[in-house]
Amino acid sequence: MTDTNKHELERGLHLTPRFDANGLVCAIAQDATTQEILMVAWMNADSLALTLETGIAHYWSRSRNELWKKGDTSGQIQHVRDILVDCDQDALVLRVDVAGDGGACHVGFKSCFYRSVRSKSGDLIQTQVDPKA
Amino acid sequence: MTDTNKHELERGLHLTPRFDANGLVCAIAQDATTQEILMVAWMNADSLALTLETGIAHYWSRSRNELWKKGDTSGQIQHVRDILVDCDQDALVLRVDVAGDGGACHVGFKSCFYRSVRSKSGDLIQTQVDPKA
Repeated sequence: MTDTNKHELERGLHLTPRFDANGLVCAIAQDATTQEILMVAWMNADSLALTLETGIAHYWSRSRNELWKKGDTSGQIQHVRDILVDCDQDALVLRVDVAGDGGACHVGFKSCFYRSVRSKSGDLIQTQVDPKA
Repeated sequence: MTDTNKHELERGLHLTPRFDANGLVCAIAQDATTQEILMVAWMNADSLALTLETGIAHYWSRSRNELWKKGDTSGQIQHVRDILVDCDQDALVLRVDVAGDGGACHVGFKSCFYRSVRSKSGDLIQTQVDPKA
């Protein structure tokens, strides 16, 4: 990368995402009100374009290998308040308001990050209210 | 993946990170006080073990292909207050207190996410105070 390109990437005011070898960038959904990190997903160019077009988060499902409108079946639609891009434009933060029950995780928790590492040996504790309790 | 393995991965209380083909998991650093998302980086097994051992964030630099103690030259050491893991254990959130000037981005901003997408055409605006202004 030339210095000019690097400068444009880092300081420029136009979105030029650096998709990886699989055509994806990392996308983090963050609750726009509580700032809680809800989930990490992936976007290809199509899902990003659709998200910008509709204001509703669309991702690329790596497991199903298909475009994925988050909440289409669960009702947990993510209305995008803002999209942030990082310095080298290979990661995005979507600041969202979540419809439905407000959750984001298929296991049932509000956030996918419902466990915390408690020790060097890798013991976890659950940090969110269990949806099945 | 069997149902038992999936259940253990999602509901189990032991850290079993699912490293990708390059041996990496995505790691998000979040300011433990303000909840601001500071940066997205990558960890291999060694950097994760060192982070758990020392309480200081270590990553794997994909560009330099080496273990990277964040802040070693800049002073922006990340003291890890908590590590969260997501449902399928391929992403981590590090809740950190940052030493030095409190920043995380090599460009000079506090967070790497200093630009916001303002339009469907992909125009960006800068959302943080410019360190060079």
